[in-house]
Amino acid sequence: MGVVVINFKAYREGSGKLAMELAKIADDVASRSDEYIAIAVNSLDLAEIVKEVSIDVFAQHVDAVDFGSHTGRINAEMIKEKGAKGSLINHSERRLKLADIEFIVSKLRSLGLTSIVCTNNVPTTAAASALNPNYVAVEPPELIGTGIPVSKAEPEIVENSVKAAKEVNRNVKVLCGAGITCHEDYVAALDLGAEGVLLASGIVKAKDRKTALEELVGLK
Amino acid sequence: MGVVVINFKAYREGSGKLAMELAKIADDVASRSDEYIAIAVNSLDLAEIVKEVSIDVFAQHVDAVDFGSHTGRINAEMIKEKGAKGSLINHSERRLKLADIEFIVSKLRSLGLTSIVCTNNVPTTAAASALNPNYVAVEPPELIGTGIPVSKAEPEIVENSVKAAKEVNRNVKVLCGAGITCHEDYVAALDLGAEGVLLASGIVKAKDRKTALEELVGLK
Amino acid sequence: MGVVVINFKAYREGSGKLAMELAKIADDVASRSDEYIAIAVNSLDLAEIVKEVSIDVFAQHVDAVDFGSHTGRINAEMIKEKGAKGSLINHSERRLKLADIEFIVSKLRSLGLTSIVCTNNVPTTAAASALNPNYVAVEPPELIGTGIPVSKAEPEIVENSVKAAKEVNRNVKVLCGAGITCHEDYVAALDLGAEGVLLASGIVKAKDRKTALEELVGLK
Amino acid sequence: MGVVVINFKAYREGSGKLAMELAKIADDVASRSDEYIAIAVNSLDLAEIVKEVSIDVFAQHVDAVDFGSHTGRINAEMIKEKGAKGSLINHSERRLKLADIEFIVSKLRSLGLTSIVCTNNVPTTAAASALNPNYVAVEPPELIGTGIPVSKAEPEIVENSVKAAKEVNRNVKVLCGAGITCHEDYVAALDLGAEGVLLASGIVKAKDRKTALEELVGLK
Repeated sequence: MGVVVINFKAYREGSGKLAMELAKIADDVASRSDEYIAIAVNSLDLAEIVKEVSIDVFAQHVDAVDFGSHTGRINAEMIKEKGAKGSLINHSERRLKLADIEFIVSKLRSLGLTSIVCTNNVPTTAAASALNPNYVAVEPPELIGTGIPVSKAEPEIVENSVKAAKEVNRNVKVLCGAGITCHEDYVAALDLGAEGVLLASGIVKAKDRKTALEELVGLK
Repeated sequence: MGVVVINFKAYREGSGKLAMELAKIADDVASRSDEYIAIAVNSLDLAEIVKEVSIDVFAQHVDAVDFGSHTGRINAEMIKEKGAKGSLINHSERRLKLADIEFIVSKLRSLGLTSIVCTNNVPTTAAASALNPNYVAVEPPELIGTGIPVSKAEPEIVENSVKAAKEVNRNVKVLCGAGITCHEDYVAALDLGAEGVLLASGIVKAKDRKTALEELVGLK
Repeated sequence: MGVVVINFKAYREGSGKLAMELAKIADDVASRSDEYIAIAVNSLDLAEIVKEVSIDVFAQHVDAVDFGSHTGRINAEMIKEKGAKGSLINHSERRLKLADIEFIVSKLRSLGLTSIVCTNNVPTTAAASALNPNYVAVEPPELIGTGIPVSKAEPEIVENSVKAAKEVNRNVKVLCGAGITCHEDYVAALDLGAEGVLLASGIVKAKDRKTALEELVGLK
Repeated sequence: MGVVVINFKAYREGSGKLAMELAKIADDVASRSDEYIAIAVNSLDLAEIVKEVSIDVFAQHVDAVDFGSHTGRINAEMIKEKGAKGSLINHSERRLKLADIEFIVSKLRSLGLTSIVCTNNVPTTAAASALNPNYVAVEPPELIGTGIPVSKAEPEIVENSVKAAKEVNRNVKVLCGAGITCHEDYVAALDLGAEGVLLASGIVKAKDRKTALEELVGLK
């Protein structure tokens, strides 16, 4: 059993009513699959989606702040109250300062939430692993959104990331992202030592999203 | 009739269940007051609060992006779908680049949403007014959260901001913020030419929030 | 007589020894031209170049800080001590927060230095003008580095920027940038009401930089 | 023999002529001391100071860019041409994104320059060490500028940082910073396993800077 995290990004197809629709599709597919399927949604949609699905729902970002005078920010305590499972951290589209990544990973851990730190190469994967998150998701930025799977284009990045992460912290699980769209890519990622995949457009922007997700996890 | 916008910030007392409680208090007081009362809440709480109250609900921030690959971002289209009236922009705790302020103000206007651009002094108030937002809220940063009302400590900032804003753009309305806590401060702000106030801790962190808001708008 | 400001950027051809070479070329051409020619160089090169040329030398950026605990920052006082004439502010490759632009413009003015605030469209040009800088340089980001002159591709942006700036602040002078490479573009900019141009690659990366600059200012 | 790196910050006393004066003092003291003394100066002063002293001169920051359209940025190639030994990276007053720290450390290493990555606690020290810089300088932000030496206030941070760094990467050397002002603090840092210290106000803002530095390295 592998891990499939679907990042809804700020896609039109991943926001508002279309986000709710996709969340329910993912919930349905998950109920029929052996894979662990989770979703990462924007902060406006999170509370409503959590109420409607059984699968784990992640935030796409939390800010490195406690409660206080931080207009326009959301923190880990807030997403916990809403029922989030955890959060993506440091996605390539929302890069963070090292000190802030550490703050957020520590905070999530102390609240019993799950952290998925995104990285861009082998050295940053090793560095992120040293912060003791639950997952590190390595995504070569040049492949994101291309449909060219990292597991095929740069398999050594996945293998070396797994190796580097484990050397620094044997508890960290590695996901791989960027370009993943089909079952073959997913299986390749697992074969390279990853625990699963983080993906977005391949599912969120698919014409038939239910079929795309079923195919990804091997139900079709 | 003046304008009262309550910024819930990321206060513990302005988040989650306590945010909903305060939103309902504001809704109740607004129904009995001649003043226009609105609230600005964090993005996780926004959708649920909009459903429960009749008063206008603002976001505290939106990002300067369209739909797309912007993990961890929310845009103006999303807050509109959730029923927000508009958004605070460039709060002193969430300062933005000039080009991004312009992007967001333009976007909100094109979507029929209301923009409240926060500024820190007279020149930035004039500059923000040139972008044609609905409101500019001038808040000297050194007074925010102090309980020392800008209308008393630096009345000339309010007067000169109103004057500077109108010279650049006669359609812009000026709010004043920082240190406002009671009816006297509110009246003083209106007397100085402001259309109303933007305030936070004076209400959100008050021991008796209902009474504090009633007092502010002159119901007590 | 118009204004020509050459931005050396972080081009290899605009750094170190090649920056000094180009500075001397600009100094030489300026001595034979009726146009006002100035250069904007990186902070590492600034002090040495100021000593070697008679033309005005600008910084490409200063930080919005006073003296103090600001590791890795440079401020307006520092560039003044080195002999800079002033600084570019808010270039499209170094966008700043509104409050910081205001801080820097005010600081430069108080020190007798010249400010050139870069903007991206008509509304931001109006906004920047409200801050009372010496110059606003409007550069549509989509044209920067293309060789397609703004004065030809979007002449109305130049005209409307000049108009909008003057309405807000009649003392502000408008430069136009993006895609300027030859004398024809330069003359077109002046004809549209601009006081001059801000340009970069057309000169800095030209094969024969001396000839390119001579051509630009009408010496060839 | 230990390492003493003096960060001139953006102190008035560490800029311009006063920076040059202090650089020469450090050069003089270094010539009479067994300790390795280096200085980190602002980018405007760097080129001139390198020419006047024999000690190693570091930049306080470099940007995560190659040569190109990066107005207002300086890169590693530029500081190398000026004769810098290397650069501070990620100082608490100039925090960087994880991906950018990795970019800069890799770039400096490929150019034969020395990297000193600043961190704020044990986990970030471990993370930075995974990026294979030459030095990690751990500085609890709450002690910076206080005169309360980390080696006394929180000795376990120094010890645990050394341990954590070595576990991840045995080649990394650990400096400690924050609050170091005298010989006793310096010796304490070495005793705790650090290779030396990164300090600023204790020397830069001392009334008698020569005596302060002589005392620090045990010459008085």
